[in-house]
Amino acid sequence: LEPLWLVGHTFAENTVGRLMERPPAVFATGASVGSVIEALREIVKQRMVTYVFVIEPAGRLVGVVAFRELVFADPNQTLDQIMLREPFSLRPQQPFVDAMREVVKRHYPVYPVCDDAGHLLGVVKGQTLFEQQAFEISAQAGSMVGVEKEERLATPWSRSFRFRHPWLLINLLTVFLAAAVVGFFESTINQLVVLATFLPVLAGQCGNLGAQSLAVTLRGMTLGELRGMSKLRLVGKEAWLGLLNGLVTGVVAGVGMYFASRGQTVADPVWLGAVTTAAMALCCALSGIAGATIPIVMRRMGADPATASGIFLSTITDISSMGVFLGLAALLLA
Amino acid sequence: LEPLWLVGHTFAENTVGRLMERPPAVFATGASVGSVIEALREIVKQRMVTYVFVIEPAGRLVGVVAFRELVFADPNQTLDQIMLREPFSLRPQQPFVDAMREVVKRHYPVYPVCDDAGHLLGVVKGQTLFEQQAFEISAQAGSMVGVEKEERLATPWSRSFRFRHPWLLINLLTVFLAAAVVGFFESTINQLVVLATFLPVLAGQCGNLGAQSLAVTLRGMTLGELRGMSKLRLVGKEAWLGLLNGLVTGVVAGVGMYFASRGQTVADPVWLGAVTTAAMALCCALSGIAGATIPIVMRRMGADPATASGIFLSTITDISSMGVFLGLAALLLA
Repeated sequence: LEPLWLVGHTFAENTVGRLMERPPAVFATGASVGSVIEALREIVKQRMVTYVFVIEPAGRLVGVVAFRELVFADPNQTLDQIMLREPFSLRPQQPFVDAMREVVKRHYPVYPVCDDAGHLLGVVKGQTLFEQQAFEISAQAGSMVGVEKEERLATPWSRSFRFRHPWLLINLLTVFLAAAVVGFFESTINQLVVLATFLPVLAGQCGNLGAQSLAVTLRGMTLGELRGMSKLRLVGKEAWLGLLNGLVTGVVAGVGMYFASRGQTVADPVWLGAVTTAAMALCCALSGIAGATIPIVMRRMGADPATASGIFLSTITDISSMGVFLGLAALLLA
Repeated sequence: LEPLWLVGHTFAENTVGRLMERPPAVFATGASVGSVIEALREIVKQRMVTYVFVIEPAGRLVGVVAFRELVFADPNQTLDQIMLREPFSLRPQQPFVDAMREVVKRHYPVYPVCDDAGHLLGVVKGQTLFEQQAFEISAQAGSMVGVEKEERLATPWSRSFRFRHPWLLINLLTVFLAAAVVGFFESTINQLVVLATFLPVLAGQCGNLGAQSLAVTLRGMTLGELRGMSKLRLVGKEAWLGLLNGLVTGVVAGVGMYFASRGQTVADPVWLGAVTTAAMALCCALSGIAGATIPIVMRRMGADPATASGIFLSTITDISSMGVFLGLAALLLA
């Protein structure tokens, strides 16, 4: 009676096939309720049974029977008379993430796994998928800055080093780009060194603002909110929020610049303050756009939208904020 | 027969009480299996029944019966003969997060909720807790940079602005601190303006490294790995990883500084390169320590370990990296 159990068969990593177990209770369509109950009486002593799976002689899954149905059935009825037909099932080659998205609204204790022809291959516990889901989502914040999903607190330091170091080298490349922008304006800073003082203000503020937009967008993807939503409207909202937030904090920074640059004679402190405010507003808007756009573009390119997104973002926010600020200041001083 | 249903009663936000529903099937200990099955036959037409809850006359929950037990029982047996005694239950005043941690290993479809005296108050669906869990964990990356848990993609911009703006103002304060550090070394930068060029390298690299340590620690807390683990060893591991990563990237940055500062005469380019390497190694170690320590300290203070942790972290990494780098350079130039 038992079909070909492919449990143990090799499936790609991160697919449902890797989580499959052998189903404990499988019966033919014509089996009587009474005989099934007698058989189950022995099976439940050995294994946890949640559903009875009903198959055709060729092994195709045609129905599921819960104990609820067995309680109300007549012992002489056959399984095909009381079973739930065409039950929901997973495919072994499905990636976890896809499977999790499908089962989140169902939340059954156990899911059958079938091949494309409908043959029952195994079962996956809902709890297993649930733990995997928590594992995946909790990896997101680390993934953004170059930590691998597999890294845990107990991971040995040498392995953590190998996991994290490549991304830190890539990050180093990107911060050198930012440094090159600042280097390009060395003569401007030489004329007015207080400009250097304001670089962390611009970079730090745009960086945090962009990180807000990025996190909100990624979360929307995780919770499935982005489907059927206008991407343009989302990016527009983040741009508008960036502009507003940049204006308010830019005014504060501009006033700071006014007071910080009063002593010098190369440029009007009022104009320097205005340049600071303008740079902040403009670059915060850009950072909002970048934060919302990066994960959308990454996913469209077939990549994980979270991976290294924080590194890409800070590259953009650093270069644009310090570049625009020093560029405007250079124009003023010219 | 029905006990006092406190469903609808006011419980604090984010507690189990808010998610409670009325249990569909509640019977007295002495009820016979046969009569319960007959009663259930009608109830299941109206509502989804997963477990039968068994209470004493005073309303105390004393057992749970699944349909599995009903299948194998004799119709003349009473519920107290087949029920699972002292079933697991939640408390209505429990915060979600606590409840989620307790149920993650159980993964039942439905959980009973009882008061401290054991009276059955309601039930909570596993799926409801599961969705709440996904909602909570997915909020973490945003929470780190000042996005409220409640913000969704569909949140109107005015509300998003009110949510995010206060944290951006706090962030502005912290970046002004970093600016003050740079300002303190204005005369040093005035002597050697290439130092300003390397500020984004130090700040950007330490920032990303600290964010890795922070994310790994927060994730460990979320997955419950931190319990029973030595906090000191965890911080030590992150410090060591920071030092190693900082040494490697610091050598690259040091070589960069050597070439960038060859034209000037105020300080030996070799020494400037060495200072850059030393500052990077030291500050990356500090950033690793800060990343691991911030969430631990925040939780010990009773706060959410993720909230604004990214803002606190970047304050520390910005100030320490730029301060140490410019401080060492100032000593060299003195």
